[in-house]
Amino acid sequence: MERGNCDSDRAAHPGVFLSRGSGKSDPQPAGRSLDFPVSVVLPAGGTGERTGLQTPKQFCSFLGRPLISYTIQAFERVSWIQSIVVAVAKENMDLMTDIIQRFQHRKVRAVPGGSTRHRSICSGVLALREKEQEGKERLALDRPKVVIIHDAVRPFVEEDFLYKIAMAAKEQGAAGAIRPLVSTVIATTSEGYLDHSLERAKYRASEMPQGFRYDVIYQAYQRCTESDFEFGTECLHLALQYCGTNAKLIEGPPTLWKVTYKRDLAAAESIIKETLSRSACIVTGGSAQAAALADALQKAVGALDMELDIIPELKGDNGRYLLKEWNFIQVSVSHPCLSGVDALLADLEAANRALLHPLVVIWVHLSGSDELSISRSMAKHVAIMDLGSAAKLRNILLYGIQLHQSEDTEHWERSVLRAAEITSMLIRERSPALVGQLLQA
Amino acid sequence: MERGNCDSDRAAHPGVFLSRGSGKSDPQPAGRSLDFPVSVVLPAGGTGERTGLQTPKQFCSFLGRPLISYTIQAFERVSWIQSIVVAVAKENMDLMTDIIQRFQHRKVRAVPGGSTRHRSICSGVLALREKEQEGKERLALDRPKVVIIHDAVRPFVEEDFLYKIAMAAKEQGAAGAIRPLVSTVIATTSEGYLDHSLERAKYRASEMPQGFRYDVIYQAYQRCTESDFEFGTECLHLALQYCGTNAKLIEGPPTLWKVTYKRDLAAAESIIKETLSRSACIVTGGSAQAAALADALQKAVGALDMELDIIPELKGDNGRYLLKEWNFIQVSVSHPCLSGVDALLADLEAANRALLHPLVVIWVHLSGSDELSISRSMAKHVAIMDLGSAAKLRNILLYGIQLHQSEDTEHWERSVLRAAEITSMLIRERSPALVGQLLQA
Repeated sequence: MERGNCDSDRAAHPGVFLSRGSGKSDPQPAGRSLDFPVSVVLPAGGTGERTGLQTPKQFCSFLGRPLISYTIQAFERVSWIQSIVVAVAKENMDLMTDIIQRFQHRKVRAVPGGSTRHRSICSGVLALREKEQEGKERLALDRPKVVIIHDAVRPFVEEDFLYKIAMAAKEQGAAGAIRPLVSTVIATTSEGYLDHSLERAKYRASEMPQGFRYDVIYQAYQRCTESDFEFGTECLHLALQYCGTNAKLIEGPPTLWKVTYKRDLAAAESIIKETLSRSACIVTGGSAQAAALADALQKAVGALDMELDIIPELKGDNGRYLLKEWNFIQVSVSHPCLSGVDALLADLEAANRALLHPLVVIWVHLSGSDELSISRSMAKHVAIMDLGSAAKLRNILLYGIQLHQSEDTEHWERSVLRAAEITSMLIRERSPALVGQLLQA
Repeated sequence: MERGNCDSDRAAHPGVFLSRGSGKSDPQPAGRSLDFPVSVVLPAGGTGERTGLQTPKQFCSFLGRPLISYTIQAFERVSWIQSIVVAVAKENMDLMTDIIQRFQHRKVRAVPGGSTRHRSICSGVLALREKEQEGKERLALDRPKVVIIHDAVRPFVEEDFLYKIAMAAKEQGAAGAIRPLVSTVIATTSEGYLDHSLERAKYRASEMPQGFRYDVIYQAYQRCTESDFEFGTECLHLALQYCGTNAKLIEGPPTLWKVTYKRDLAAAESIIKETLSRSACIVTGGSAQAAALADALQKAVGALDMELDIIPELKGDNGRYLLKEWNFIQVSVSHPCLSGVDALLADLEAANRALLHPLVVIWVHLSGSDELSISRSMAKHVAIMDLGSAAKLRNILLYGIQLHQSEDTEHWERSVLRAAEITSMLIRERSPALVGQLLQA
């Protein structure tokens, strides 16, 4: 909010990691398709040294879900990607298996990685081959024509770019993402002095994803040396050296960035939260008074850059709101009735909507100014706190906002504006500490 | 909070940008001193292309203050830095002058920058010379022996590292910060294919700050060509080429990072908020009941990784809490009295404590469970909302938390824990939308 004056550009993170649904109940076809099988290898054996954290970055939790699950989701929702192999350190195999089960990832299996990045990638590449030989115990999959290699800690990769990499890999044998250099690169003398600086325009940072024809990457790993396995960093280099394959380099978007330092955890969380906060659905229950309040809220929140739809109930056609990434606002007027919220929570639970991230539900209540309404205040506080505590266990964050009827237009407009600001903040921040509060607008 | 399981390391951002006070009323001496004059040039003419924002990054606001003011503060608090010249685009001169006045920066002046980075730096370097010739209208300053050049968008630079750069610059003529390369650097062919990759160990990213003896940087700019001014990026390179000065390269901490992309804005805000949220001071007003509640809160919040001191009042020796970066919690029991909060707000305002960032004040109220307490509830809500709205205009964020007395130990402990969680969240998030709320614990 504080940065609002700067945030004119939302395109920097179009957030495709949600736009096609959760990957579970996706009603939309993917944008483009490929006529050859593509699989993915995610080396995830890193130890997270650079963040200075005990937990490796790929297992750090964002809104209750490990980073690697977001990365997996980014691939899983792409229709033309058939399988994903995650290579993890042996001590993290159980953790990884738990993650796959808990978040219901379907296209993924974990294999033990090696002691270096190249060994882990190689394990993944071999696992794709073994799979073909071994097993009909899972889905019957073709051996991939193209393998995409990506980092588990780059969760924001987008389908369009994966498509470009896969196509170029098929045509050229190898393809890799590049980005402009952010800093000047300099060569140092052995005594720690400046030797020379590189001309920035001639060089690029090599990023991920990279794509390879299966035979190219397989042969590269068959032919490379122990020293490559131990100290090498660049798959493109192996493809060039051992298969004579010159990789096609494709300039990628800033969203390819890698969660590297501790500060990147905050950046990643902010992007995830922003993507979850684009839209909300107001349910009025059909009352005219509630619909009027919903209209007023819609105007005020709209000014705060959030899309708001109003519906009487979630039945029939409106059931579609349960399938996509919406937040929910239940409006009630006069009678402090939480039964609408109860029903909404039941619907959301039945749709398994809080599987991948906490879902926000806000109860907006317009109360009368009479004595009776005031004396009921305490009961409302208790009721929403109890309901909120129960819902939180199921990954749904319930908050309340109370407005008071007023004849004074200016007072009323200020209340609606405050309700809108609080609504927007609650949806954006998803604070567990505020669950069950009845905030005053 | 969500990332709590990963956040074992706070050292990554020790937050020196606050640890020596606001730079205004600093009671502590600086760590080390230098026996030669050092000045700083901040080129700040950038247009913010890479963030995709309309406002140049250095003027983006964090908790109500532009990024460049944080960077200025990082230098201003260092006792041995005598002056700072900011070179800004002509169209931003008025804005920059406003920022200097509004946040009471004392060591700074703005000069018009040039059309490129090198022209801006050169303007700054010349301004340091002119100053010596022209004027006794300001402080009588020596011509600097060493000039430190830094980016306006690297606000987290620390005194220790500036010291190293200044010392090495004096001894060697030039010194610059380096960091390990995050990505492999590759050379591309003109057709967009991989040519070769660089051996990572031999190269470093050149970062800021850099330091120069004044005569070295002055001569380098006197001798360099129009092409250098137009296309050059690296001051160290100019010093080498035109003065034969080989820069000493010093490995810097991750905190030297540059706010470059939109995601970096979220990372910067998170670091700033974290730094402001390390400690809070509970004021009890002297009552034994309030002190008991404060003790319980201290235990519960302590487990949440925040330092909490308890004092009866801010008088006498305890006035020192007004001089440093503390957040404040005013505890009251039974009588819903906001007079303690009123007095606290007046003290904080008198100490000008909300000049550089919004200050958090939380009123924690323990109310009885009798009928009278409940009927007073509405009045409390109104009172704290009014007080909060007024304080917000003076950059103080006031929130309330209400606990209810209970004989049931389990119930009471749950309430205290919830109060602690809410306290911690309010201090960390500093949400303007929650100002004046009386939250239920």
